[in-house]
Order: sequence, then structure tokens, then C-alpha cells
Amino acid sequence: MTPALITLDWGTSSLRAYLMAADGTVLDRRASGQGIMALGGATFPGVLAAVAGGWAHAHGPLPVLLSGMVGSRQGWVEARYAPCPAGLADLAAALVDVPDAPPGFGRVAVVPGVLKDEEAAPDVIRGEEVEVLGALSRLRLSDGLFVLPGTHSKWVRVREGAIATFSTYMTGEVFAALKGHTILGRMMGDGGFSPDGFRRGVEAAAGLTGGAGALLGRLFSIRALGLTGRLAEADSADFLSGLLIGAELMDATRGHEPFTLVANPALTERYEVAATRLGLPQARAPDGCGPAGQFAVAQAAGFI
Amino acid sequence: MTPALITLDWGTSSLRAYLMAADGTVLDRRASGQGIMALGGATFPGVLAAVAGGWAHAHGPLPVLLSGMVGSRQGWVEARYAPCPAGLADLAAALVDVPDAPPGFGRVAVVPGVLKDEEAAPDVIRGEEVEVLGALSRLRLSDGLFVLPGTHSKWVRVREGAIATFSTYMTGEVFAALKGHTILGRMMGDGGFSPDGFRRGVEAAAGLTGGAGALLGRLFSIRALGLTGRLAEADSADFLSGLLIGAELMDATRGHEPFTLVANPALTERYEVAATRLGLPQARAPDGCGPAGQFAVAQAAGFI
Repeated sequence: MTPALITLDWGTSSLRAYLMAADGTVLDRRASGQGIMALGGATFPGVLAAVAGGWAHAHGPLPVLLSGMVGSRQGWVEARYAPCPAGLADLAAALVDVPDAPPGFGRVAVVPGVLKDEEAAPDVIRGEEVEVLGALSRLRLSDGLFVLPGTHSKWVRVREGAIATFSTYMTGEVFAALKGHTILGRMMGDGGFSPDGFRRGVEAAAGLTGGAGALLGRLFSIRALGLTGRLAEADSADFLSGLLIGAELMDATRGHEPFTLVANPALTERYEVAATRLGLPQARAPDGCGPAGQFAVAQAAGFI
Repeated sequence: MTPALITLDWGTSSLRAYLMAADGTVLDRRASGQGIMALGGATFPGVLAAVAGGWAHAHGPLPVLLSGMVGSRQGWVEARYAPCPAGLADLAAALVDVPDAPPGFGRVAVVPGVLKDEEAAPDVIRGEEVEVLGALSRLRLSDGLFVLPGTHSKWVRVREGAIATFSTYMTGEVFAALKGHTILGRMMGDGGFSPDGFRRGVEAAAGLTGGAGALLGRLFSIRALGLTGRLAEADSADFLSGLLIGAELMDATRGHEPFTLVANPALTERYEVAATRLGLPQARAPDGCGPAGQFAVAQAAGFI
């Protein structure tokens, strides 16, 4: 098949590049550690040329679509936020061209993030919106609740093919801060995954009543469980992980809604185990939602 | 008045010592930075002799009551936990004498902590139980909900003069970990207290619906408020403080119960401001609850 498009998912610490045919088939791929905060003295055009210049040289001046943190204020060019609801046409209409595309490429443009513009509790997303739109494409869905687990888990609600609203849960980063920088971490080993500790943490989350503050009131029980000989040191880190992920799942699904897991194989299993324990129906999106979403945006923007 | 008792509130990083008359009047007091984790090469008997030896020399072999972390596993002698419900008589019956009291003193004994022995969510307290019993004594109360704000806030429910149950909220330590070790801290200055930021955080807590996980889902809005120009950097640390303290207050009081603040003047004002904003009735205990509680335990134990 003839190459027709280059896409880059360009994040903070790494990037992935794809060469695609006009029907979205991925023909070739590259990866690099040159994320936008890890350029190592190189320039944005320089990194694009180094990663994808061979493709351009071989196949002519292909258009390039960039998504992820490359569109943030610290990125190549700032592509601000499209407001919710945001579908393919909205993202395509808000693409921002880089001012200094390297020679040999066609149009080089960046996908905007998405803004939930609520006065009291706004939220932003950048990169994950493309993956969710890719999941819609791959699953042939136009509605649903999707989660991208991570340092910041993104829960995205889709209606009629557009991102209707979303919420960021800082679960992974809160876990790391609590484990690394509070008294809870003192009793936590660095051993392997403890399924039993994780399961008990999820069950603790399921048993939480009361409001948001209940989490602040439950954390210390991890230490007290240890002091009273009811929780082994080797289990306590994953107890905390289960407690936080369980609380996230219960809140984000309101305790009953089905959802689809997108990307992040390392964390997907934890979310599946926790959701099953909590009786929450869930499905896993196929691999490749990222490039599928980039292709869909590029197509909506007339790149192909 | 004739001195009849020496008490020490001996914590992790400091200690306070009191010389008391037989009616509980505080006749003299000392403070030292030699907390149990800051002995600086000295021994426990040596520190007691250095701090209170002058009193013993002047007034004869007075009995000594110690409370706080000095009774933990890392302290002078381990005085384990009295189970809930725990009143004065229970603590008095569970005192543990030190094996090596320095010469010139009478009986030297340590107050135990208190254990909430719930299988799934146990909790422990050590030192604060004495302050709460002191607050009961000073306020002539035998029932109520008391909070000792701190790195770990302790919410203590008293019934018929005894500690019926309690809950630890890791609010202060969670605040420090989130400010110091997550992306939220990047936009936080180290300026003075921002009443406006704090008030907005408390209001955000009041608006939280959903379960415990709602807190994980609300934290990132602090960053998004900053990104969208709705929250100044100078306000954001106290916004987080207000969010966490507000969530703690709403959960611990179930949104309506009156409570009494004990000790910690620095934090008391924040809790008062937040409680007022949330419509929660509250009172402030008088100073001196610590020594008043130690006196009450000593009296119950027949020291005087």
C-alpha cells in the first residue's frame, strides 16, 4: 500500500511515530525517547526529521499530524483547547500548523487538547482525546464511558461520537506521593505485586461510606492494620493502590456504569481486577487506538 | 501550693514538662527539643533528670506521669493500647512503669495509647487521648465530638466520659505530600496565607458529590483552574488546604454535627474558618487541656 500520512504521538518523555496508508493501515513505526521535555538539545523540526525523514525521503512530502503534549505551551507550537463537546470535526477544525516544518514534509499540524470549561471545576486533556476517538473508530461505537488509566487517569464520556465531558483522577500520582512521602510508605516494601493486598484495598474502597473526606480518614488504617498485625508490609503498598483505584472506579462509574479501558497494558490489569471485584462491567479496547484516532482526525481534516 | 506531681507530654520532636499542685494547678513548666526521636545521644532517664531533676531536688520524690509517643515502641517503655471505650479509669489501670526511673523521683509511669479495634479499619491514637480527657475536665463535659487538628487530625467521639471511638484523617500530611511531590505543587508559591484561596477550596469541598474517590477527581481541577486563569498561583496552595480540610470536616461531622477544637492554635483558625463556611457549629476548648488530662489520669491512678 502507498504511504499517505505520518503521525506522531509526542508526549513529555517519549514519542511514537507511524507511517500510514490512505486507509489507516500502519505500514511502519518508530519510537524515540525524545519527548518534549527530553529533546537533549535537539529542536522540534530536527527530531521530526531524524525520526521520520527517512519516510519522507522515500515516499515524498507526506502530511504529518502531531498529537499529545507537543501541542502544549512547552511543546513545538501551542494548540490550545477545543471545548466540549469535541468530536473529530471539532479537533480537525482547530489544528494548528507548526511555523517551521522541516523541508521534505507536507503540512505539519498539531491536534488541540480538549477543555471542560466548567467555571468551578474545569479540566483539561491532551493526547488522550485522540486515543478515545481511536477507540470509537476501532470499536465502531459512538457512545460510552472510557478510561485511560495512568499517573492521571482520564475518564471520558462520549455521546454521539463526541467527547461530551471528562474527569481527571490523579490516582497514580497521589499513590506515588503517599508511598514516597508519608508515614504510610515507611512500612511498604518494594517487592512484587501483591494480589491479596490489592484485593483487600479494593474491598476497603467498596466499604467506604460518607463523602470525599472518607478517603483522608481511611488512609491511616493502612498503618493501623500493620501495627495490629493484620496487614503484612509486603501487602501494604498494593493495599493502598487498591484503595485508591477502587475509590476512583466507584466514583467515576457512580458505582454501576459499564466502561471501556483504553491503552496502558501495565495498569489495565489492575483496573480489570478491581472492576471485577466491585461488580463493574468493563471491556478492553483493542491495541492501536492511538494511531487509529490520529488517522481519524487526519481524515476529518482532509489530510488524506 | 505544694508541688505534688510532675507530668511530661513527650512527643516525637519535643517535650513539655509540668510541675503541679495536688489540685492540678500548674506551678511551673519547662519545654525541650529532646523528643523521643531527638534525644541527641542522651538516655530517657537522663533527659527526665535534666528537665525535671531540679523540681525533684527541691520538692522531694514526686511521682511522674508521661504521655505521648514516649509510650510507643520507639519510646522509653512500650505502653500498648487500651481498647475503646477508654475512660480515665481504663487509662489509669493500663499505666506502664518505666524499669529505670532515675533516682530522686517517685513512681514514673507511661500512659497507654488507645486502640479502635475494628477488624477491617482499626485506628490508633497516642497522646491525643489525654488531651481530649483534659478538655472534658476543663469544659465539664462527658459527651461530644472533639478534633485535634494536625499532620494527622484525630476526631474523637466521647460518650459518658470515655473515648468511644475515633478516626485519624491524614489531612496535613496528605497536603504536604501533594504540594511537595505532585504536579499541583509546581504552581504553588510559598507566600503567606491566602484567605480567598482557602475559602474557595472549602467551597469546592462543600460542592463535592459522589464517594470517597471524588477527592481524587477534584484535585486536578486546581491545576486546570490555574491553566484557565481562574486561580492565581498565590491562592492555589491554600485552595488545596481548604479543599482537604473542608472534605475532612464534612466527612467527620457527617455534614452537621457540632464539635470542639482542641489544641494546635496554628491550625485551629483554619478549622474554625472552614467550619463556619460549611455551617458547622463548633467551639474551641480552652488552653491547657494537655496538663489537665494528665492530672486527671494521675488522679485516677492514685498518684495524688
